[in-house]
Amino acid sequence: MSNIISAAEITNADAIHPGYGFLSENADFSRICEEHKIKFIGASPDMIAKMGDKATAKATMKAAGVPCVPGSDGIIEDFDDCVKVAKETGYPVMLKATAGGGGKGMRAVWSEDKLKAAWDSARQESKAAFGNDDMYMEKLIEEPRHIEIQVVGDSYGKACHLSERDCSVQRRHQKLTEEVPSPFMTKKLRKDMGEAAVRAAEFIAYEGAGTVEFLVDKHRNFYFMEMNTRIQVEHPITEQVIDFDLIREQILVAAGTKISGKNYEPSLHSIECRINAEDPYHDFRPSPGKITTLHAPGGHGVRLDTHVYAGYSIPPNYDSMIAKLITTARTRQEAIDKMKRALDEFVIEGVKTTIPFHRQLMDEPAYVKGEYTTAFMNTFKMKPQED
Amino acid sequence: MSNIISAAEITNADAIHPGYGFLSENADFSRICEEHKIKFIGASPDMIAKMGDKATAKATMKAAGVPCVPGSDGIIEDFDDCVKVAKETGYPVMLKATAGGGGKGMRAVWSEDKLKAAWDSARQESKAAFGNDDMYMEKLIEEPRHIEIQVVGDSYGKACHLSERDCSVQRRHQKLTEEVPSPFMTKKLRKDMGEAAVRAAEFIAYEGAGTVEFLVDKHRNFYFMEMNTRIQVEHPITEQVIDFDLIREQILVAAGTKISGKNYEPSLHSIECRINAEDPYHDFRPSPGKITTLHAPGGHGVRLDTHVYAGYSIPPNYDSMIAKLITTARTRQEAIDKMKRALDEFVIEGVKTTIPFHRQLMDEPAYVKGEYTTAFMNTFKMKPQED
Repeated sequence: MSNIISAAEITNADAIHPGYGFLSENADFSRICEEHKIKFIGASPDMIAKMGDKATAKATMKAAGVPCVPGSDGIIEDFDDCVKVAKETGYPVMLKATAGGGGKGMRAVWSEDKLKAAWDSARQESKAAFGNDDMYMEKLIEEPRHIEIQVVGDSYGKACHLSERDCSVQRRHQKLTEEVPSPFMTKKLRKDMGEAAVRAAEFIAYEGAGTVEFLVDKHRNFYFMEMNTRIQVEHPITEQVIDFDLIREQILVAAGTKISGKNYEPSLHSIECRINAEDPYHDFRPSPGKITTLHAPGGHGVRLDTHVYAGYSIPPNYDSMIAKLITTARTRQEAIDKMKRALDEFVIEGVKTTIPFHRQLMDEPAYVKGEYTTAFMNTFKMKPQED
Repeated sequence: MSNIISAAEITNADAIHPGYGFLSENADFSRICEEHKIKFIGASPDMIAKMGDKATAKATMKAAGVPCVPGSDGIIEDFDDCVKVAKETGYPVMLKATAGGGGKGMRAVWSEDKLKAAWDSARQESKAAFGNDDMYMEKLIEEPRHIEIQVVGDSYGKACHLSERDCSVQRRHQKLTEEVPSPFMTKKLRKDMGEAAVRAAEFIAYEGAGTVEFLVDKHRNFYFMEMNTRIQVEHPITEQVIDFDLIREQILVAAGTKISGKNYEPSLHSIECRINAEDPYHDFRPSPGKITTLHAPGGHGVRLDTHVYAGYSIPPNYDSMIAKLITTARTRQEAIDKMKRALDEFVIEGVKTTIPFHRQLMDEPAYVKGEYTTAFMNTFKMKPQED
């Protein structure tokens, strides 16, 4: 941090854009910039701290009238309390051990007559595994999708939204591919989620580009998950469908420009595939090393954002993402077709990459139909590698 | 050609897209495809032959009611004929020796009282230089711009246009950069030129993607130059501003799809820089050789179409173009700014490229103001290279 601040002072920089890496959500760094009278292009230290703490974020969102996942307020006292909370929450519910992990001490309960057995067995299991049988409860989100809303707020308290991104295709909570519009989206749901996200941003007087992440169940109920107070990896697909340079907008807003407050609807379809230096044929194990050959795809509707090149060495200690391949077209099917063509054209040698995974994904019936949830990768299997 | 036909027959291909290279305007190749019942994605042999011969093309366009550069019908008989033709053509006119070249035997004449002196001296000069004093005459195009109209015709005789491309920045008749909209364009001129181009395409029942090239003078008179019966190098900028995949459209039209006949207006601004393996600091001399390092620019509104990569050897005998860098934005200035950023990010080592030329061009006052003609490069000078 001190090196960056020194560099900024030497070069007389009046602002710092922290990218989307480590420092973009670092309240300390934001504060240090403030102290050195260098504009941090991102959220204020307070905002980062507030949204970085899940409990505070959830409480704030509740106060703003943004739907959060219902459930118990902390630990459930006893079974009577459990029945009461479950009734308030509405079935199905999820009983979870506060000490839990790896699925242990967790029970999905679909009706009151099944509650007692679940309560007893979950507590026993938790006690045995963790020496603690404290339980809490959350509504069970059926067939959840991870759908987030991009927002931009200015320094005058005004915010707008730039529609959604569907990021449900995840592996161990790491997004693999994103798209906009979400195949699950309706006009009404976008309006409702967009309004909730703008309400959230304006409630906290959010300044800059931010993302409000929601879980959406199969009934199209949506629940606040968290807010990312930075630009996100997957922001390009939003830029493509609304023709809006988000980084430029971040800088403008940081410079004190007012936004109109107009919301943006996607006029095209865009998909991003995160190309990671990982071997999809061996459980996505990291594949650091030197890229010996790189040939990039091109053409209409193809965007490639990358820092790597032939001769680049991927270090073993950092993020394995090496490129973002984005295709944009008038329809979802056309964007998929373009992605297939672009993935086929994309050559990276020297390290293993997730290109073959994405290539297979684009032919996967559930993906092609747009029928996927956050559980999609649990059952996904790579086809044997061709020689 | 025979190898390609063999490959197509072995693989059971039902059509061949010839790209924009040698074979795309080769009437023989188009005919051979026809004979082998393989669809040539491009113009028919007749169409290629007709538009490939300048005299035939001009006569055809005249018949279609498309404005052509006025002048003498071939050789001027004598000075009386010269006076008459000049009057019909309208001053200023250009007297040209039929044997001429390198500016010899050429005179611009702005009024009748200067005609006799020009006639005599041009004939003398031509006689001395070429042993022949035959002269012809053309209207002098004042401050000419090269502006072309993209058309698409279907196999049912219907055509549409997709607006213009300004290709005036040329060196020895080789386009260096192109943009759409043309900074010189008006709504009326686009309508008139577009209608003329559609008239041209429909008159000859043109099928596929084609380009009608015009010279436009400072009074916004426009004159047919030639028609290219293929997709052009600079087609991406059209794709970017009207969000229309031209290659896809070529294939659809070849497959018998009907077009609506609707014309397209640019909704954005797009610029293409042709990156050639040439040394702009040494009169653009070719710089073949091996690319050792390549780092591509990316981001919103940046498109890079290229066949090269680190390790690729540029052969000395072919076209020196190695990449097309295209930026697209809401305004011309923003597209220029993006181009500067993208050129700065673009690293090619091992060969000299025209990247520094384009970088300087984007700061050249006449270019930035959009005030350039086909003579622009005559006075352009590279600034000394920084070390």
